[in-house]
Amino acid sequence: MSQKYATRAEDYSKWYNELVYRADLAEHSDVRGCMVIKPYGYAIWEKMKEILDKKFKETGHSNAYFPLFIPKSYLSKEASHVDGFAKECAVVTHYRLKNAEDGSGVIVDPTAKLEEELIVRPTSETIIWNSYKNWIQSYRDLPILINQWANVVRWEMRTRLFLRTAEFLWQEGHTAHATKEEAIKEAELMLDVYADFAENYMAMPVLKGRKTASERFAGADDTLCIEAMMQDGKALQAGTSHFLGQNFAKAFEVKFADKEGKLEYVWATSWGVSTRLMGALIMTHSDDEGLVLPPALAPIQVVAVPIHRTDEELAAINAKMNELAEDLKRRGISFKYDNDENRRPGWKFAEYESKGVPVRVAMGPRDLENGKAEIARRDTKTKEIVDFNGLGNYIENLLNEIQDNLLNKAMVFRTENTRTIDSYEEFKKEIDKGGFFLAHWDGTAETEAKVKEETQATIRCIPFDSNQEEGKCMVTGKPSKGRVVFAKAY
Amino acid sequence: MSQKYATRAEDYSKWYNELVYRADLAEHSDVRGCMVIKPYGYAIWEKMKEILDKKFKETGHSNAYFPLFIPKSYLSKEASHVDGFAKECAVVTHYRLKNAEDGSGVIVDPTAKLEEELIVRPTSETIIWNSYKNWIQSYRDLPILINQWANVVRWEMRTRLFLRTAEFLWQEGHTAHATKEEAIKEAELMLDVYADFAENYMAMPVLKGRKTASERFAGADDTLCIEAMMQDGKALQAGTSHFLGQNFAKAFEVKFADKEGKLEYVWATSWGVSTRLMGALIMTHSDDEGLVLPPALAPIQVVAVPIHRTDEELAAINAKMNELAEDLKRRGISFKYDNDENRRPGWKFAEYESKGVPVRVAMGPRDLENGKAEIARRDTKTKEIVDFNGLGNYIENLLNEIQDNLLNKAMVFRTENTRTIDSYEEFKKEIDKGGFFLAHWDGTAETEAKVKEETQATIRCIPFDSNQEEGKCMVTGKPSKGRVVFAKAY
Repeated sequence: MSQKYATRAEDYSKWYNELVYRADLAEHSDVRGCMVIKPYGYAIWEKMKEILDKKFKETGHSNAYFPLFIPKSYLSKEASHVDGFAKECAVVTHYRLKNAEDGSGVIVDPTAKLEEELIVRPTSETIIWNSYKNWIQSYRDLPILINQWANVVRWEMRTRLFLRTAEFLWQEGHTAHATKEEAIKEAELMLDVYADFAENYMAMPVLKGRKTASERFAGADDTLCIEAMMQDGKALQAGTSHFLGQNFAKAFEVKFADKEGKLEYVWATSWGVSTRLMGALIMTHSDDEGLVLPPALAPIQVVAVPIHRTDEELAAINAKMNELAEDLKRRGISFKYDNDENRRPGWKFAEYESKGVPVRVAMGPRDLENGKAEIARRDTKTKEIVDFNGLGNYIENLLNEIQDNLLNKAMVFRTENTRTIDSYEEFKKEIDKGGFFLAHWDGTAETEAKVKEETQATIRCIPFDSNQEEGKCMVTGKPSKGRVVFAKAY
Repeated sequence: MSQKYATRAEDYSKWYNELVYRADLAEHSDVRGCMVIKPYGYAIWEKMKEILDKKFKETGHSNAYFPLFIPKSYLSKEASHVDGFAKECAVVTHYRLKNAEDGSGVIVDPTAKLEEELIVRPTSETIIWNSYKNWIQSYRDLPILINQWANVVRWEMRTRLFLRTAEFLWQEGHTAHATKEEAIKEAELMLDVYADFAENYMAMPVLKGRKTASERFAGADDTLCIEAMMQDGKALQAGTSHFLGQNFAKAFEVKFADKEGKLEYVWATSWGVSTRLMGALIMTHSDDEGLVLPPALAPIQVVAVPIHRTDEELAAINAKMNELAEDLKRRGISFKYDNDENRRPGWKFAEYESKGVPVRVAMGPRDLENGKAEIARRDTKTKEIVDFNGLGNYIENLLNEIQDNLLNKAMVFRTENTRTIDSYEEFKKEIDKGGFFLAHWDGTAETEAKVKEETQATIRCIPFDSNQEEGKCMVTGKPSKGRVVFAKAY
């Protein structure tokens, strides 16, 4: 453990990149902008998927799978969608390789050119609505409540592991409804599902709100979002839920006959979260020693390490740990007992600390004698000597406490770094320090653009739940209906 | 239900295609060769995934995720691999679109050409071994036991839903080992996992064996497979497990230091099953009325339909069905009660029959009076009147019986359609009738090719478990070490 890592204070960005490697979560591949998600990182993503998937099903959704490729012409069917998405995509133009004549390897077969190029999906509204067209005739076919777990590709120029990669994994819900009201309700419901997941599993407080028109999803009438605050004070958009109006129904001519037989365009939503949540999770809780995981998402919730000199001591500790393993298994707690003889306890302590295992149990000969074990918490880095009797129960409570503590800590951090501000001069001075700034805005795209240009800060959302008072725009002095959240963002 | 569907006897291929639509499993998309897996079909695939994933984890594997794209040059690194795979692939050549100047839509931006083309993965050995190179230094880093759930693309010219599609979903295991013996053991273990899954969940008997050299995976030293027999007597390769020797380690220079510090190339396996299993499942059990599902993979195991004239009758039946729902839930049996007033019982009966729901419960006023319910089995299409008391227990046993019956039926079918044959003349006459033919073969690729050319039959496998006796090749009369399995195949 002699390697020196950057601390958050020294270099936040370097700290993040090193942490992703150090905790063995992911790495860059040789393919520009594409990452390899390593087993430990993927295990966390699998937990996220499992919990979200259950919530989607509980709210009436089914999974399905649509093609990876989208015909180029589909992208231009919805006018504002193409502007927002069509540009930076992976384009498939050929369908065959052949051996190079000089024997140097393979080359693209020029005779195998596609008539119409295919785009690797950056999002699936177009291909899905092209299918829905055939699925929907009458109000009886509605609602359609479908989710897809998939990989998508957006050709990003500057990439960062999990936060911004050319290929990423996500889920995208795509629903079709008979009424506007029902679609809006759906978009709101799914935002609530995301917020609940963020707070109760990721231990990450989020602001719920709506995007301004300029920050909306390309093709949406309304974009709802959850915004989280990272430890450097920057905002991270953790999930979005879009009310798409009838835009895609019109683009793909999807109409249904209502009970009176009248033909109407269908109403739509889409909503998604991605492996970006991994970045959010890391940056919300981790510290200079490595990853810190909320117990609800930790692949290993408890790790135990024996400290011994003799084989007899090890055998006695093994027996105790088997007892503990059984107890924790009954409680549904994931437990790893690491008695690998090739590694020393100090190495193991550092390893599991880097990997963010919430609770560490250590037991040495003296603990054994006294019927005790040493329990270390990853979140607070405190240790306690605890009776072995009743340890399972103690750990179960401790895991709950850690989960709560992480959320509270993040809440406090966010509160401390959220301020109301009324002077644009002050805003310009303060914005680089990070945090959320609640400020009045005149509601125009011009003012929003000016702030962005002058400070790189954007309106993260128009929050739902603030006690909104009227005021004057901090930039123009024009009337404002309420404060919005400005921040620099990932 | 007035639509007339093709029967298996009339047109097996049409029957299959119609069934996939009729049971709402999947459909063709507008993208050539790519399918849409609809929610009901995907729910079956999800069950398959869940069971297999559990088995992979129980045998020590972890999931991870590697890039969708493979640099073109990687494919030529393993010589025989490129011959087997590199040809029919989706090739990404550009990374940006732009608006057409005439406003007609989007066009590929010619300035955004990739320096090296990217191939959409047809399988991931190359990209994964390129990563393993950095992960493996010493014997301590071995074994690596990783699986990936992913989409892959092989540009097939003639496609059929589930059986052969340009894009399909699969899992691919990729393991790295210190010794040849360990790698061979791994390949055999995973074949056993597949065979167990096929027989005990899909209720589909499979032959285990190895491929001949000409039928081997491109880059493998040995390809093990499970082969199933469809109802038209054709063989379907349901899963493969490859011992890759040191081929990919050599291609990507992956060496490890053994305990003595000596550098050695790493040994490898890969193994996979895909959404093709959906095709196998359909064709093993289904009948002219639609899908037949083994209970272990049925998204809905039991459906209940009320038959009533009055609201009072419905209310009374609803109450009974709620009781049943609770009972079945406790038993872990998935149950749907369909009391939708917009559909008539006859429509529902046909619908759930098409969809292969294993058990149907119907209850009318007279059943209610007598404390009975009508139970219909999908597999045998038999009905019984059963006491409502104890119905949960009855159904639980019935589901087990159906699972067993489907496997037995398929076993009997396979036995009846498997024959030993010694005359090539007779073989040529009989092969079109379908079935497995156990014949002696001289072990040469020439003879294998001749049979394939003259009859379109291939050697499906050299079976593991037959009581092999020596003999003479049915084609050339040369010595044979044992019988191999010839068949026409999907």
